[in-house]
Amino acid sequence: MTSPTLHSADVVVLGGGPGGYVASIRAAQLGLSVTCVEFDKTLGGTCVNVGCIPSKALLQSSEHYEWLRLHAAEHGIKVDGASIDLPTMMARKTDVVAQNTKGVEFLFKKNKITWAKGYGTLQPGNVVEVKAADGTISHWQGKSVIIATGSVPVQLPFLKFDEKRVLSNVGALSIPEVPKHLVVVGGGVIGLELGSVWRRLGAKVSVVEFLPTILTGNDDDLVKEADKIFRKQGLEIHTGTKVTGADVYDDGVRVHVEKDGVASHLDADYVLVSVGRKSAIGGIDPAALGLAMGARGEILVDDQQKTNLPGVYAIGDVCGGKLLAHKAEEEGVIAAEVIAGKPVHMHHRTIPGIVYTWPELATVGLTEQEVKASGRVYRVGKFPFSANGKARTMGETQGFVKFVVDKDTDEILGCHMIGPNVADLLSEVVLAMEYRGSAEDIGITVHSHPTLSETVKEAALSALGRAIHM
Amino acid sequence: MTSPTLHSADVVVLGGGPGGYVASIRAAQLGLSVTCVEFDKTLGGTCVNVGCIPSKALLQSSEHYEWLRLHAAEHGIKVDGASIDLPTMMARKTDVVAQNTKGVEFLFKKNKITWAKGYGTLQPGNVVEVKAADGTISHWQGKSVIIATGSVPVQLPFLKFDEKRVLSNVGALSIPEVPKHLVVVGGGVIGLELGSVWRRLGAKVSVVEFLPTILTGNDDDLVKEADKIFRKQGLEIHTGTKVTGADVYDDGVRVHVEKDGVASHLDADYVLVSVGRKSAIGGIDPAALGLAMGARGEILVDDQQKTNLPGVYAIGDVCGGKLLAHKAEEEGVIAAEVIAGKPVHMHHRTIPGIVYTWPELATVGLTEQEVKASGRVYRVGKFPFSANGKARTMGETQGFVKFVVDKDTDEILGCHMIGPNVADLLSEVVLAMEYRGSAEDIGITVHSHPTLSETVKEAALSALGRAIHM
Repeated sequence: MTSPTLHSADVVVLGGGPGGYVASIRAAQLGLSVTCVEFDKTLGGTCVNVGCIPSKALLQSSEHYEWLRLHAAEHGIKVDGASIDLPTMMARKTDVVAQNTKGVEFLFKKNKITWAKGYGTLQPGNVVEVKAADGTISHWQGKSVIIATGSVPVQLPFLKFDEKRVLSNVGALSIPEVPKHLVVVGGGVIGLELGSVWRRLGAKVSVVEFLPTILTGNDDDLVKEADKIFRKQGLEIHTGTKVTGADVYDDGVRVHVEKDGVASHLDADYVLVSVGRKSAIGGIDPAALGLAMGARGEILVDDQQKTNLPGVYAIGDVCGGKLLAHKAEEEGVIAAEVIAGKPVHMHHRTIPGIVYTWPELATVGLTEQEVKASGRVYRVGKFPFSANGKARTMGETQGFVKFVVDKDTDEILGCHMIGPNVADLLSEVVLAMEYRGSAEDIGITVHSHPTLSETVKEAALSALGRAIHM
Repeated sequence: MTSPTLHSADVVVLGGGPGGYVASIRAAQLGLSVTCVEFDKTLGGTCVNVGCIPSKALLQSSEHYEWLRLHAAEHGIKVDGASIDLPTMMARKTDVVAQNTKGVEFLFKKNKITWAKGYGTLQPGNVVEVKAADGTISHWQGKSVIIATGSVPVQLPFLKFDEKRVLSNVGALSIPEVPKHLVVVGGGVIGLELGSVWRRLGAKVSVVEFLPTILTGNDDDLVKEADKIFRKQGLEIHTGTKVTGADVYDDGVRVHVEKDGVASHLDADYVLVSVGRKSAIGGIDPAALGLAMGARGEILVDDQQKTNLPGVYAIGDVCGGKLLAHKAEEEGVIAAEVIAGKPVHMHHRTIPGIVYTWPELATVGLTEQEVKASGRVYRVGKFPFSANGKARTMGETQGFVKFVVDKDTDEILGCHMIGPNVADLLSEVVLAMEYRGSAEDIGITVHSHPTLSETVKEAALSALGRAIHM
């Protein structure tokens, strides 16, 4: 059944995740008519439905449970017995997700954005064909089209996702029981976050990472500290270890591994494969459209999110780079503003990255290793949370804040944190870097006492050799 | 017994609280010889010993307990019975304080600062007489003297502190049992923080405030929201209510009050009097020294912390203004740098203020009412935590972030927050205000998703009429 009508809009957005829905809202704010195509039953994409939001809900609940088990007594809080009610925890997660997806739906109505429900396929002439669940087909032509189709998890050929025993992020958010032994293949953000959730709830968790360290690409100091802390928490971490194969059974998986040439295996009841994500271009035929793609299968864009096709933009994970919701959102805002004629452009110098383990990790800018490799002369400032008054009152003294600054100008080149609530502490540094600010700017700014943020100030002062509390 | 020796130092600091010890460290960093006079058994002053630090330790513990009672179940955490072990909670508080006081002592040694233990009296010629606990007297002459003697709580004539039933901040941090009924006289920061501690631990708490609202001087919106939330939490708040007298017994206090001309009374087992603090000038005779004082008994200083006496500086609470540790610290740094010949000066435009209740309050700059009264044309941006993804995952959706910005220039004039972890969220805004930044600066800066800090970004965008998630 094909709709004869060709609908039209100023902007047709392909995908309703954080990139797509934010682009839609911003375009609507700027007076453009917008249709957003999303095949899922809810808006919000991977992030809201099976990514950031549900994982943070479980991280929150499980961290409370761990705190209760390990630290309540020292605070003088006596508990006769604490246990997990997994269905309730999962139901809360589902509810939190629903609050967010309904929120996006509300914003669409408020901004008069049309949600074209169905699977979108990009066709020549900036037309998106939308196939609804019932088979109905409609077509939307946009003066501009924004591709915001996101990414999908990479599969291993011998460990295909069945979401029963071999899990992606989707399945790992909804395991029906606390695993006895969860093997996580890939020591990146997703693996460490979801691995932490299940470890806290009682699972033995083994992380298998092919590369020499977990969290590759981060500052060495940060990675070392995180590795040390995670191991102390009970996470089994096997770095430099290759997964060579797997036997999947009804009730578990035998994961074959090899380290330094020695083969062995891990028997798990569940395996989470989190070895990376790749651009989701199911509804796009780059060759047929003549759409320029990069070496990793990502859509190539310029700093205004323009693809090589006239009037076609792309944003978020599908363009590669950092696969982060806030990067997608920002690119969505840029695309919408460019379409509306505003003279803006995107830059990636100050895109922060967070790992929501506990302690959290938060980073922005260049690592010390990157700065060193560039030949630039630099200084490092570092301050531990163990010397911060608020952290002591919280009993959360692990970790540090580290600045890498230009030696001559004092400009902040990068900042790397591990510690309590550093996800929020980082925003000050990101703002400073947007101003191309110096460590001294942060160091001479008053920070409330007693707050964790004083650690940021002291680390900045430390880059100048004048931290007070160290 | 008088010491015949007149010791000397480049800088003699009178008082080892956050103002004095930070001034001492900064002066030592700058190559000056420093002696700090402190009569208490430990360094750190009110803040570290009987103020910020111990209160935050108890706030932390008690908030965990309240969360456990009220919210654990919804997270799927089952607890068979939770109770308070007050001695353990208090011992932890004492231990946290000791970590901090020992930390300051370590910093003194590291920076080669002499701690002259004893009660200091300022004499003419920049000499400080130090009377030790054993009666020994010594004299220290400084090329410069920094007065950092802090403040003491104001007493009510009919409710003198006995620290048994009539408590200042000191006694309220160490009540040996959970009160049945704690009456707090004064609805300011100290009263609300310590009142919250004991309420969470099971006490009935009544706050009596003479003025029409609690937290006078804060932005009206913030006060209204805080009042609503605190009442919902179970705090009994009596505003516009005068305390007219009190009968103090061995086992309690009858507090006589009057509201709208109607007299009544409150029977309490403990009363916390937190009606303000005044400059501590016990060891200083302004008339004899010719030291210029302000109308409220504060030492007058210029923007380099200089008093009218040559070579004599004053910092922190004793100078009046905002009685906050970080304001004292900053003034201490300024005084030390001025003494060392640096061309710096103090300004108070960006001194933040925090209330460590839960949710927290955090403010900087002008209130909407102050801006309005000045006749300046302004805009307001506001965003609720209920629309923030991270807040939803935490289940902490109360409160908001509010910006007051100049209508023409978009410069941030003030920011007022109530919500989860806002004490740390504020630091970004303080930095922006130091740069004399605009709401747009914050609004177009990428904030990690999902973080509470996105609320700050959205509130800033809201001042521009373009919040995304609202």
